[in-house]
Amino acid sequence: MARVSQEHLDARRRQILDGAARCFARNGFHATSMQDVLKEVDLSAGAVYRYFSGKEELIAAIVTEVLGTLRGVYERAALESPPPLPDELVARTFAQLTRERPTVTDSGEWLFPRLMVQVWTETLRNDELSAVLSEGFAEVRAAWAKVVVRYQENGMMRDDVAPDAVARTLIATAQGLGVQYALFGGFSTEALQAGMRGLLSMREADDGTGNQSVKSG
Amino acid sequence: MARVSQEHLDARRRQILDGAARCFARNGFHATSMQDVLKEVDLSAGAVYRYFSGKEELIAAIVTEVLGTLRGVYERAALESPPPLPDELVARTFAQLTRERPTVTDSGEWLFPRLMVQVWTETLRNDELSAVLSEGFAEVRAAWAKVVVRYQENGMMRDDVAPDAVARTLIATAQGLGVQYALFGGFSTEALQAGMRGLLSMREADDGTGNQSVKSG
Repeated sequence: MARVSQEHLDARRRQILDGAARCFARNGFHATSMQDVLKEVDLSAGAVYRYFSGKEELIAAIVTEVLGTLRGVYERAALESPPPLPDELVARTFAQLTRERPTVTDSGEWLFPRLMVQVWTETLRNDELSAVLSEGFAEVRAAWAKVVVRYQENGMMRDDVAPDAVARTLIATAQGLGVQYALFGGFSTEALQAGMRGLLSMREADDGTGNQSVKSG
Repeated sequence: MARVSQEHLDARRRQILDGAARCFARNGFHATSMQDVLKEVDLSAGAVYRYFSGKEELIAAIVTEVLGTLRGVYERAALESPPPLPDELVARTFAQLTRERPTVTDSGEWLFPRLMVQVWTETLRNDELSAVLSEGFAEVRAAWAKVVVRYQENGMMRDDVAPDAVARTLIATAQGLGVQYALFGGFSTEALQAGMRGLLSMREADDGTGNQSVKSG
């Protein structure tokens, strides 16, 4: 009985978080009321407030969950030998998020990137949310940096650059692609991977002798 | 006389745009009123409305100006031989923006990245702004893609990837770094360049013989 009850509680919690995420993605945090969330999930106030005290707790729970997903992707990748290349890893990130947050959709559009942009704007003025996001971001960065260390240990990347700087740059790429998806659409994992592969193939210009100078590793 | 007058008009326009940018960056687009802008720039309603009909025109002018700056950076870069590497180019982008938008500051913090995040959120719900941003973004992408074509022509990048995909990925990196600056601070051009250099140095893992397999170019 207890197990069934826990499953029920988890499913209910999931339902509330997904409904709130849809509301926030659609209209932003400020323009969304708890009434909107109740209507979206079709539950009574009593049922929802048993889980979350209000919008602040909802958004913090959503952010924490997503950042945990990202951290997991990179921590697992750091255990692989050789570690997956960045183009593969960024593609995995999006695949994992679409799998775990499929319900954040309206009329077929994946609303997660919209949610992300709205959360950033809210974070600029909400100290509590900023603290949650900062802490989670630091953990994601640390997990990515572990993968970068593995690149360097495997001779896949020059080892005179700080792993944290590379981690920030890779996270930036994923964030920016999310922005472009939310604002302009037309995103595809294939285009993203092609773009990353192009970058990873770069070398200095021909030296004029027909030989290409490969950068120091 | 006419020339002096034009200079005066330009300076006044600049003053209004910079003040509006500070307001939007600080409090977001919705929470900013034209009254706030008038107070910020210390001008009368008549003086300001001679230039801009309201918030919509102000934000559109700011966005158009910034996108024009970015396009110029990449169009000039495409004329260089060999073209500057991405790490140099992303650093130039931020240098140019800090030079052209230095007045978007409060207490020493560079507010431009905050403005960028706020504009994105506003774009999600404002069709007119969305049209302005989409058009400008397409032009910036096209300019970046010209640089990518030059990389490929110079044997600096594999030529079997679409220049547009690489352009989107590089723009994404700059956007994401802006997000991190706005939300978490601690941004430095040096860290960014180190991160990009790390990525650009990447190759596949050692093949076990001690030789490193360099990717096809």
